[in-house]
Amino acid sequence: MFLQRRQQLFAAMSDNSVAIFCAAEEQTRSRDTEFPFRQDSDFYYFSGFNEPSAMLLLIKHAGETRTVLFNRRKDKLAEIWQGRRLGQEQAVSNLAIDKAHAIEELGEHLHLELDGLDKVYLAQGRYPAYDQQIFAAIECLRNGLRQGFKAPKQIEDWRPIVDEMRLIKSAEEVTLMRKAGEISAAGHVRAMRSCKVGMWEYQLEAEIHHEFLMAGSRAPAYGTIVGAGDNACILHYTENESVMQDGDLVLIDAGAEYQMYAGDITRTFPVNGKFSPEQAKLYKVVLDAQLAALDMLKPGVSIYQVNQEVLNIMVRGLVELGIMQGDVAKLIEEETYKEYYMHGLGHWIGLDVHDVGDYWDVKRSRPLAEGMAITIEPGLYIPVDAEVPAAYQGVGIRIEDDVVITSTGCDILTSDVPKSIAEIEALMATS
Amino acid sequence: MFLQRRQQLFAAMSDNSVAIFCAAEEQTRSRDTEFPFRQDSDFYYFSGFNEPSAMLLLIKHAGETRTVLFNRRKDKLAEIWQGRRLGQEQAVSNLAIDKAHAIEELGEHLHLELDGLDKVYLAQGRYPAYDQQIFAAIECLRNGLRQGFKAPKQIEDWRPIVDEMRLIKSAEEVTLMRKAGEISAAGHVRAMRSCKVGMWEYQLEAEIHHEFLMAGSRAPAYGTIVGAGDNACILHYTENESVMQDGDLVLIDAGAEYQMYAGDITRTFPVNGKFSPEQAKLYKVVLDAQLAALDMLKPGVSIYQVNQEVLNIMVRGLVELGIMQGDVAKLIEEETYKEYYMHGLGHWIGLDVHDVGDYWDVKRSRPLAEGMAITIEPGLYIPVDAEVPAAYQGVGIRIEDDVVITSTGCDILTSDVPKSIAEIEALMATS
Amino acid sequence: MFLQRRQQLFAAMSDNSVAIFCAAEEQTRSRDTEFPFRQDSDFYYFSGFNEPSAMLLLIKHAGETRTVLFNRRKDKLAEIWQGRRLGQEQAVSNLAIDKAHAIEELGEHLHLELDGLDKVYLAQGRYPAYDQQIFAAIECLRNGLRQGFKAPKQIEDWRPIVDEMRLIKSAEEVTLMRKAGEISAAGHVRAMRSCKVGMWEYQLEAEIHHEFLMAGSRAPAYGTIVGAGDNACILHYTENESVMQDGDLVLIDAGAEYQMYAGDITRTFPVNGKFSPEQAKLYKVVLDAQLAALDMLKPGVSIYQVNQEVLNIMVRGLVELGIMQGDVAKLIEEETYKEYYMHGLGHWIGLDVHDVGDYWDVKRSRPLAEGMAITIEPGLYIPVDAEVPAAYQGVGIRIEDDVVITSTGCDILTSDVPKSIAEIEALMATS
Amino acid sequence: MFLQRRQQLFAAMSDNSVAIFCAAEEQTRSRDTEFPFRQDSDFYYFSGFNEPSAMLLLIKHAGETRTVLFNRRKDKLAEIWQGRRLGQEQAVSNLAIDKAHAIEELGEHLHLELDGLDKVYLAQGRYPAYDQQIFAAIECLRNGLRQGFKAPKQIEDWRPIVDEMRLIKSAEEVTLMRKAGEISAAGHVRAMRSCKVGMWEYQLEAEIHHEFLMAGSRAPAYGTIVGAGDNACILHYTENESVMQDGDLVLIDAGAEYQMYAGDITRTFPVNGKFSPEQAKLYKVVLDAQLAALDMLKPGVSIYQVNQEVLNIMVRGLVELGIMQGDVAKLIEEETYKEYYMHGLGHWIGLDVHDVGDYWDVKRSRPLAEGMAITIEPGLYIPVDAEVPAAYQGVGIRIEDDVVITSTGCDILTSDVPKSIAEIEALMATS
Ligand SMILES: [Mn+2]
Ligand SMILES: [Mn+2]
Ligand SMILES: [Mn+2]
Ligand SMILES: [Mn+2]
Repeated sequence: MFLQRRQQLFAAMSDNSVAIFCAAEEQTRSRDTEFPFRQDSDFYYFSGFNEPSAMLLLIKHAGETRTVLFNRRKDKLAEIWQGRRLGQEQAVSNLAIDKAHAIEELGEHLHLELDGLDKVYLAQGRYPAYDQQIFAAIECLRNGLRQGFKAPKQIEDWRPIVDEMRLIKSAEEVTLMRKAGEISAAGHVRAMRSCKVGMWEYQLEAEIHHEFLMAGSRAPAYGTIVGAGDNACILHYTENESVMQDGDLVLIDAGAEYQMYAGDITRTFPVNGKFSPEQAKLYKVVLDAQLAALDMLKPGVSIYQVNQEVLNIMVRGLVELGIMQGDVAKLIEEETYKEYYMHGLGHWIGLDVHDVGDYWDVKRSRPLAEGMAITIEPGLYIPVDAEVPAAYQGVGIRIEDDVVITSTGCDILTSDVPKSIAEIEALMATS
Repeated sequence: MFLQRRQQLFAAMSDNSVAIFCAAEEQTRSRDTEFPFRQDSDFYYFSGFNEPSAMLLLIKHAGETRTVLFNRRKDKLAEIWQGRRLGQEQAVSNLAIDKAHAIEELGEHLHLELDGLDKVYLAQGRYPAYDQQIFAAIECLRNGLRQGFKAPKQIEDWRPIVDEMRLIKSAEEVTLMRKAGEISAAGHVRAMRSCKVGMWEYQLEAEIHHEFLMAGSRAPAYGTIVGAGDNACILHYTENESVMQDGDLVLIDAGAEYQMYAGDITRTFPVNGKFSPEQAKLYKVVLDAQLAALDMLKPGVSIYQVNQEVLNIMVRGLVELGIMQGDVAKLIEEETYKEYYMHGLGHWIGLDVHDVGDYWDVKRSRPLAEGMAITIEPGLYIPVDAEVPAAYQGVGIRIEDDVVITSTGCDILTSDVPKSIAEIEALMATS
Repeated sequence: MFLQRRQQLFAAMSDNSVAIFCAAEEQTRSRDTEFPFRQDSDFYYFSGFNEPSAMLLLIKHAGETRTVLFNRRKDKLAEIWQGRRLGQEQAVSNLAIDKAHAIEELGEHLHLELDGLDKVYLAQGRYPAYDQQIFAAIECLRNGLRQGFKAPKQIEDWRPIVDEMRLIKSAEEVTLMRKAGEISAAGHVRAMRSCKVGMWEYQLEAEIHHEFLMAGSRAPAYGTIVGAGDNACILHYTENESVMQDGDLVLIDAGAEYQMYAGDITRTFPVNGKFSPEQAKLYKVVLDAQLAALDMLKPGVSIYQVNQEVLNIMVRGLVELGIMQGDVAKLIEEETYKEYYMHGLGHWIGLDVHDVGDYWDVKRSRPLAEGMAITIEPGLYIPVDAEVPAAYQGVGIRIEDDVVITSTGCDILTSDVPKSIAEIEALMATS
Repeated sequence: MFLQRRQQLFAAMSDNSVAIFCAAEEQTRSRDTEFPFRQDSDFYYFSGFNEPSAMLLLIKHAGETRTVLFNRRKDKLAEIWQGRRLGQEQAVSNLAIDKAHAIEELGEHLHLELDGLDKVYLAQGRYPAYDQQIFAAIECLRNGLRQGFKAPKQIEDWRPIVDEMRLIKSAEEVTLMRKAGEISAAGHVRAMRSCKVGMWEYQLEAEIHHEFLMAGSRAPAYGTIVGAGDNACILHYTENESVMQDGDLVLIDAGAEYQMYAGDITRTFPVNGKFSPEQAKLYKVVLDAQLAALDMLKPGVSIYQVNQEVLNIMVRGLVELGIMQGDVAKLIEEETYKEYYMHGLGHWIGLDVHDVGDYWDVKRSRPLAEGMAITIEPGLYIPVDAEVPAAYQGVGIRIEDDVVITSTGCDILTSDVPKSIAEIEALMATS
């Protein structure tokens, strides 16, 4: 998988060039403790290597290609204290690398690896400390007339190339994403089963995370949102620190990360297991819109087009429920609906939950293509102080699934968790 | 609690000075997702405020004291997208602050707050971006003759003062730490109950974290270690990615963070619920040492003195088991034991798991005093390739509890989880 | 001289502290050429050492004092290419240093020199690269519990202390400043003698600089100003690129630097050797003011007080000449005169032309004291578009001398160059 | 001249790109005084603009080209205090710029000028503060999907292109360089005429600089070297602080900068006006070599080839004088001569004294071409402790002229100053 990706990138690189990828750094949580390490997605995409303090060089020189890794040296004492390291020797064999240097000797080797090349592909600005070392190496070559050095004179951002690669998922990637979707779905089912009036929001978070980790997902793909009542109207509510009240809905946005790939599911359900009539009406508006959207997905259609249909359904619904007034077309055109639906319909998903890839424009009018993975997540959020029927005030609903575009339509990766009112109520009744 | 701490610091500050505390920053996990926010311990200690992008100024001027906070402005749109903010007005009332400025206007106000003071107490180097803004403010005063400004001319590190304050825990802190200890203990009990041959190490992590979060601990205090077999010999093994084998011990080092305070417990138990005779013998050596250590704790005794007794017990044990050869006293003096016991006996614990506070020297010869909180965690780790009887190869054992020193002895905060062989085996048998 | 200064600073330092002074760095002029090296004034004040890449430590530890220098290593090849270096051995003997390290080994030694001290006196922000190395050394000590290190916890700006020291000139300094004044005066005399209608302004600069350098002044103390006609109204006109016209005045502000000490003289004279009647009238106003000011100088009087008298004379003169209208007292009070006299009366002078030292406030109300050195430089600048009699438009006049305050009055260091109309015309007539 | 250069660069740039040139910054000499401003050579080459705080953008977009300048805003008060500024309006007309923005608004405009381009040509690393602003602008575009921005993704070093341009001098440039050569020559003639036993080295510097500045050269092109006796053996001896002794030679390396172009001449002559027999012999070796070198210059010949001939002559001479022993060819091959002749034969000269341009390799084997300007400066430096006849110890001789390569040979720009022994002695006798 990683070799194939390197080949694809080599093919896109100009001759006599190098693409440089840097590993993520450990992040301090407090004092001398660190957050669990998460590798840089692009570095991982090409290396398959999961340690910090590393740099990957894909070099294309006179038509030949070679892959060079800088990584941490084996060190018995450090490994007793801080954990195992792959080292150079094993990196070469395990990761299909041509040569591995100790990162501790980056200063001695980097310029030699860059010597004679014309261009450096680099995501400049992402890791300033590595940028500095790379530019120092180039400067060293520039001043190295005496040693016969020749410095690269072009820096090109590899992101436009790599983002397009990452945008189209391979079969192997879809397999991993399907697994991420299944684990995520299991987490939501568990939450529905466990939910009781009077529980804390974070206790549903606990149920979900337990499900994730038991299934081999070492971390959530993003901060889990469990928002009951009007907490659901805060889009990135991760405090999860309220008691869930009888009669409220709870919105859960949670996804498992599996083998570096993200799941991303949102479900909204009644804390007490039964939708009130108004909740049910509003929920149905969102659900109809989401189902219609999923139905439209296929190559050639754009997120923009799908969202227009979503808007039609949702605005019509809001008018019918007396939440909005006026002409549906006009309410859409004038973007009045943004008071209740202020985010986009969905986003690319992959190694990152908000994955890389060009949307072409802010409307997201790029036609979908086979292998693209996206989320579909319409939502309605009625502020607590909105001038609408009281039963709708402070209600927030979102329904989100992950799909991969196929040659004829789409494949829903997260269908294991129910979303119809009947199914949800049935599931919650059994617990 | 926070007001009292501010009073205590004001009393230690020289007149015409300010102590500056900076909030922690959000840390990126990948692309646009972040790790769960963890406040800076010192900032929290004096502010009780849990948002990023903030700065606390404790100002003592002409004998009068005042507390000034810079924090994020209320912003309806930002709050819908990113979550609620306290804002300036509520900060003043909720946090007992005298004045709150928007952090967005730090550049306009900071130098005015520092004008006329002689000294700035600062933990320089911890937050370089804030350091820059503070020094820019001072430089602005230095050049502000025309405006009648007067710049501080001393920078003093507040860490020596604050570390001593944090070292002695108040009754309120002990209450929180006791709760952290109880939750941590419950996690370990759950792990013992859940453990089965063939489970993955990370599945025990899942059980523990579920217990923590259900009890209101929003995060582990540090990276949970679940090391079965010889993984136990890697001190900071957090991969937790092996299958646990019949006949192996598993070492778990896990602690809950409760209201910012850390618990820190280690237990070691047999994956299959029964210690083998050799495991039991080695375990008993560590347990005897740990119990003897706990027994010695009281004001006036030093960690160094306690560790000497621990060494006596453990080295004698190792010799008896045929793992070491020679004279006990000499083995201790020549530090031969460091092959099997390479870390210290324990550390301060509080807002940080490895809490601040001067140990005086590397031997940790500082006498304990009432209110100090420490861990006691002797351990033995026999490398897989050590020249010892085969049954001991690759065995790692550590037993750790958290205590607070009282006027006459100590109070064990983590006693709810069993550590005798009989109790452990009994507990595991019931599951 | 340098030893005495060190003793004086040691006396002002608290015990267990170090004062750090950094040498100036070479400044690039273009590509690989550099401006002539100018040492940092404070570094020179205490070291007497004239090379770049150096750091001076004045250490007071347990009552004992010692002086440590970091400077460039002797290096035969480097010295053939770049010039001679003093090296460590000779530094110790020539500069009365207790110990000298190679600056190339700063990283190995600096923290050891700072170990065990409480306070670092530092002009933080002046040399950011050195600041970084100093803070790295402190951080290294802070983390060096294992090695028994103890880090300083206070940073104090030495500028308030050192500025006061530099403000009062010793007899040796006055001797050097007198010499700087004499050379500067000779330059001005040469300019008066050489001046001809049709010369370029920079050619007078050439005459002055030749005089300076022939007399052993290796550089002007600041950018020489030669402004003919209305160029005189640009306060820091250093282009000096106009042809001097018949009928114009030329204002020259030029001073020699001698053994690091600055001279600073301004004279204004007619390009053709004869003042016009209006030029003479305006010139007399300034001269009267300047003479009156010099007359007032003695301990206890402030620059502010002197300037009030200068304002009286000059504003009265401007009213008499029809350049200003109204009541003299009111014109002064309302600062209307600032249109024509927009700068201060003078400034401290010493190692720097605008020397260090506290003026107390923007009015400069600090009483003068014996040993202070200042310039007295009233001026009038009538903009070319001012609504005044045409003959005064575009005329700029300044007369500046350097003085040292004595116990009873002052000693003028720059009296060798004439300033009365008669003397100037006489001198110019002889050339 | 500047327009033509811009056209030439535009032709070499790829479409949809911008080349960015940054002005030099003011350099502090001490405290608040600055060295005389020297513009960045490349910025000047394309702009003809002589102020600091400026940025030039040459933009080629969809086949169209435009030139944009950022420069300081007109500001009456600032101009009274700091000198005149061109401002935006006059920049457009005087400098043939299409648009000028205030540099104070760089942050508002720069990204808009870069929007939609593919490539930025930049000499990254030369002005880090400008680099930061440029990368901030690019980052702003990269995040500006919502505004429809498109960020450049390539950074290319313009130095390889611009260096080649600057390497070939136009007729206008040769005219300026000829003038620089003439002024430089006049300075050396003046030095020969003025030299007396007992003068200080810096006094010859004074004579030379006076000659330069009187002729309109506002600064020496580099630090003037006046080395008498064995000071001549220090290649960049600029202290010039010894008294010149009877019987010694003095080596002067000095060149005028005229309209930004450098002259670079070295002459060596007897302090007392008469070469001793040994001085004459050694001098003749160098002179013969230098004359032979000048004779060889023409298109197609390389500096390397010329230097081989110089080596032949000089090593043969050294052997004849008993300074070296052995076979000439072998002494050359083994580089034994480097003890006495350790630098190269010459260098490109132009806007910089060591001008830009690729030499191809360290031997400088690039064939010369019409329009290239170089110095020819063989030298011999006998260390004071060399094991050679005593009369040669501590003698340093260099003879340097500047030439432009013509279609058939070369044009010597600095021939106005004598170099034969007879001419020098005759000139010195007349003074
Ligand atoms: Mn989503
Ligand atoms: Mn611990
Ligand atoms: Mn002055
Ligand atoms: Mn040269």
